[in-house]
Amino acid sequence: MRPDEILDLDPVIHVPTRLAILSLLATMKSASFSYLKKSIGVTDGNLSTHLNKLDEHQYIQITKTFQGKRPLTTCSLTDRGRKAFMAYIQRMEQIIKTQKME
Amino acid sequence: MRPDEILDLDPVIHVPTRLAILSLLATMKSASFSYLKKSIGVTDGNLSTHLNKLDEHQYIQITKTFQGKRPLTTCSLTDRGRKAFMAYIQRMEQIIKTQKME
Repeated sequence: MRPDEILDLDPVIHVPTRLAILSLLATMKSASFSYLKKSIGVTDGNLSTHLNKLDEHQYIQITKTFQGKRPLTTCSLTDRGRKAFMAYIQRMEQIIKTQKME
Repeated sequence: MRPDEILDLDPVIHVPTRLAILSLLATMKSASFSYLKKSIGVTDGNLSTHLNKLDEHQYIQITKTFQGKRPLTTCSLTDRGRKAFMAYIQRMEQIIKTQKME
């Protein structure tokens, strides 16, 4: 791959916390806010910021409901998000392959 | 791999321009400033900033000499830089593998 193509890595996905969120969501139908928080090990505020960014780009869908009287926030990957994530993974795979070939 | 391990991706390497620089330097003994600039497609100022950051962390060595009367800046990967870059690539490979297994 050409080195300038590395600069095209999707900046919405490339941030490690967001990469961690998408990696998790790609493997499950949906995940609760508290599950993501615990799995990734980030603060509420930090997780919210990154989820909102992914939501803005329509990479994930955020659903707010109630479990009994407690609010429950769940997130799931959209088709657009899955496509973008897979494109990112493929591009990163190419970068790695270039290194392995040398 | 655990999702929280994604947050451990080396932030010195993870920035796309620096990832592009290291990908190039990993495949050659040394490269001139102008070669890197042309290959990656960045401005002088931008490239300088990122090279300095890599130099600060002792991931690359910057050598300034002269070619005739013209100053010549060349960069090469240090052992420390190669080790850090390989660790980054391996970690990223794990992230990708996790996705492929699903």
